[in-house]
Amino acid sequence: MSSCLGPPPAATALAPVSAPAMTTLRAREDREQADRIALSAATTRGAHLRTEDVRAWLAERRRAHVFQVDRIPFAELDAWEFEHGTGNLVHRSGRFFTVEGMHVVEHDGPYGDGPYREWEQPVIRQPEVGILGILAKELDGVLHFLMQAKMEPGNHNLLQLSPTVQATRSNYTRAHRGMDVKLLDHFVRPDPERVLVDVLQSEQGSWFFHKSNRNMLVETVDEVPELDDFRWLTLGQIARLLHEDDMVNMNARTVLSCVPYPDTTPGALLSDAQLLSWFTGERTRHDVRVRRIPLASVRGWKHGVETIEHEDGRYFKVAAVSVRAGNREVVGWTQPLIEPVGMGVSAFLVREIGGVPHVLVHARAEGGFLDTVELGPTVQCTPGNYAHLPAADRPPFLDAVLEAPASRIRYQAVHSEEGGRFLNARSRYLAVEADPSVVPLDPPPDYAWATPAQLRALTRHGHYLNVEARTLLACLNAVAARTREGM
Amino acid sequence: MSSCLGPPPAATALAPVSAPAMTTLRAREDREQADRIALSAATTRGAHLRTEDVRAWLAERRRAHVFQVDRIPFAELDAWEFEHGTGNLVHRSGRFFTVEGMHVVEHDGPYGDGPYREWEQPVIRQPEVGILGILAKELDGVLHFLMQAKMEPGNHNLLQLSPTVQATRSNYTRAHRGMDVKLLDHFVRPDPERVLVDVLQSEQGSWFFHKSNRNMLVETVDEVPELDDFRWLTLGQIARLLHEDDMVNMNARTVLSCVPYPDTTPGALLSDAQLLSWFTGERTRHDVRVRRIPLASVRGWKHGVETIEHEDGRYFKVAAVSVRAGNREVVGWTQPLIEPVGMGVSAFLVREIGGVPHVLVHARAEGGFLDTVELGPTVQCTPGNYAHLPAADRPPFLDAVLEAPASRIRYQAVHSEEGGRFLNARSRYLAVEADPSVVPLDPPPDYAWATPAQLRALTRHGHYLNVEARTLLACLNAVAARTREGM
Repeated sequence: MSSCLGPPPAATALAPVSAPAMTTLRAREDREQADRIALSAATTRGAHLRTEDVRAWLAERRRAHVFQVDRIPFAELDAWEFEHGTGNLVHRSGRFFTVEGMHVVEHDGPYGDGPYREWEQPVIRQPEVGILGILAKELDGVLHFLMQAKMEPGNHNLLQLSPTVQATRSNYTRAHRGMDVKLLDHFVRPDPERVLVDVLQSEQGSWFFHKSNRNMLVETVDEVPELDDFRWLTLGQIARLLHEDDMVNMNARTVLSCVPYPDTTPGALLSDAQLLSWFTGERTRHDVRVRRIPLASVRGWKHGVETIEHEDGRYFKVAAVSVRAGNREVVGWTQPLIEPVGMGVSAFLVREIGGVPHVLVHARAEGGFLDTVELGPTVQCTPGNYAHLPAADRPPFLDAVLEAPASRIRYQAVHSEEGGRFLNARSRYLAVEADPSVVPLDPPPDYAWATPAQLRALTRHGHYLNVEARTLLACLNAVAARTREGM
Repeated sequence: MSSCLGPPPAATALAPVSAPAMTTLRAREDREQADRIALSAATTRGAHLRTEDVRAWLAERRRAHVFQVDRIPFAELDAWEFEHGTGNLVHRSGRFFTVEGMHVVEHDGPYGDGPYREWEQPVIRQPEVGILGILAKELDGVLHFLMQAKMEPGNHNLLQLSPTVQATRSNYTRAHRGMDVKLLDHFVRPDPERVLVDVLQSEQGSWFFHKSNRNMLVETVDEVPELDDFRWLTLGQIARLLHEDDMVNMNARTVLSCVPYPDTTPGALLSDAQLLSWFTGERTRHDVRVRRIPLASVRGWKHGVETIEHEDGRYFKVAAVSVRAGNREVVGWTQPLIEPVGMGVSAFLVREIGGVPHVLVHARAEGGFLDTVELGPTVQCTPGNYAHLPAADRPPFLDAVLEAPASRIRYQAVHSEEGGRFLNARSRYLAVEADPSVVPLDPPPDYAWATPAQLRALTRHGHYLNVEARTLLACLNAVAARTREGM
């Protein structure tokens, strides 16, 4: 039918009268790149470091540096102060970040992750967009990724595998020392021919106000000097490491979630248009009004000598630490961190539909999101925060996750959240096979079944998947690679 | 190479052990739908109303109703008042919208559309998400779209072709009268099998604070009663009407810009990934800090009896009108409107690259955008606002548009902006063939060449194309349809 319609809209009608330029067009999608990514995912023996030696290498890097993190009272913070009037916790230079207050109202709420439709809380505000960049390079014909052994003060084990570069705007727009600049340049001035991932993604909406970072994966053909704190690993190696606790840091996981793996699945329960329409409906339905308020005015939180904490001891604390780190040159600083109360749980329920695995995503409101809701895991919470509530007010599907027998657990590992802002913030990430009798094909309105391929397509854009869902997506890719390895 | 890699990530590895469900999968993209849209675009003879009779029908509908709009002093506004303390212009019910103040700082700016890096201005705030919905139905085997002859007080010709439904959240969550409810139901409770477009899109970032509406196109197979103010038109008919001045209203144009026409062009200057990477870089580079401030505190604006206006008479005024409208039952109300000073210009420069027309999009910061920058036309401004400035401070490419000879103009028409909020807000929309000696293939950093097909793909998501670029995209589709018609 369509063949008789002539040219498609705008394809030829706008053609100018001037002579056509000789410029070559690119295909809108790069299919060869997808093959190269799949090859890296299938390669579990790296060109440099063996996967089983990564832990020893990290231990060696830990020994090579001084790392000391101590809790301190707020009064011992250096150059940080509670601002006169607002009580906001700020750095005297105006740089880094601030701890302020946030007032949230869920109109027509609450929206299902607790019984509250209005609350106040402390929140980290850091309006600058940072760069999280992983450098890629072909070694022996296979894409490898340059991972850094990086200390972050909030990590209980201090050192984890991080992106090649983690830089705030202040870092990358000002002067730097030696090597960092050269690595940074791949991301600050990326070669358009070699960018594999480049997208702004949100971070924790319960702890950050409107935070997003630029997630980048850039290939190079240049010589990259060998550096003590950096190693090249394949996607297949990283997949294995994603099965270990507290090994791959949050910044690395979010970049990895955006890797454009090919999709060869035959379809999905919902078409892409239907999935987006459901999401638009959820974003429209959730009328969340958020305003920043002075930290001093936040109701329900107690300001102590060492912490700011919730009156009932729930949710999180604002704390302060002093840090000493370095190898030849030891540097020290102090900073606030947010410390959650208890370990979190983030889980996808998984179900095969029409022969293709689907995960149950949740349209989830968090006060710090730029735009109302994003797609989160089926379950995302700190169970202890709900222990005092009647069953009806606990998060849906929490029991289905917590009580799942081992035979239904497809993936699990404990991962740390961003150790530069959060202290001992750990969550158990799971993929749990859904019991069809408990979890219907036609889920509640704020839930939808989507395939991992559909979620990967959404990571090309910001504000769709929250950071916990992106960690799980990176883990699902890892499960796939691991399974393939065993075949 | 990829064939030896085994199954793709997450395709089979998560497969649960339970028996597979018998549910049928959908293809992620609906190709048949694209053909049906192309057929409607190629059909210029509608099943009901002839295109050449639309103007007479609109005139008849105008005669059938009482429509009277008069300017009034603010003191004669009924139920609207300047709020004590803030001076914000608010409705006593708390409904509708408010006129407040906005303070904008472009860090490291200004960003190229004027010499200012910090300013204050009045702005309309309306946090609710409304619905702009067009109903579609096959008549004689061709998709037709139900357009409404709708009065809006800000339109100088009052009546224009509008979507089937324009409803604020208050409209659609409360009680209504008769017919409207039935039409509204197609959008408030859409049948997932029949949604063609469903996306939140931004509106004017210079006049609105964080405004977005839900753009919807929903098909029905139900009987739809014939109504005096509604007519079914094909995309081909609407394309012809988009060549007429002040005929198709802004709300209709934005929905039409999202219509998923098929793409059969062979490629583009930039791959989709490259275009998105450029956009991510621009969003990162533009550090725009915006805060709401009380209207009473806005510096540089004079508060008069009938208007709030800029000290130098530039930009826009806040004004007030009284409205009487209706047929059998005449209703009256009063409301504020924003009245721009002078007619705007919104233009795409167009250039054929590798045999495919491209348009030059601009990563444009507007204070009211939710997220820093969106893609705007090559030129978007009210020229009078820049007349007092030296040439270097005028918008780039403005002269290339204003001085283009007729032979280079591929499209032009005057369209009205939203007549429910803006008074006599009219812009000349143009597509102008670029002079290659003036407009390079490698444009300044905040500009990029993209194909209309690439822009259409971006309209599946919000916060990429601003409302002026979307109007132009709808017009580009119309140019294509018009040309085909002559073949």
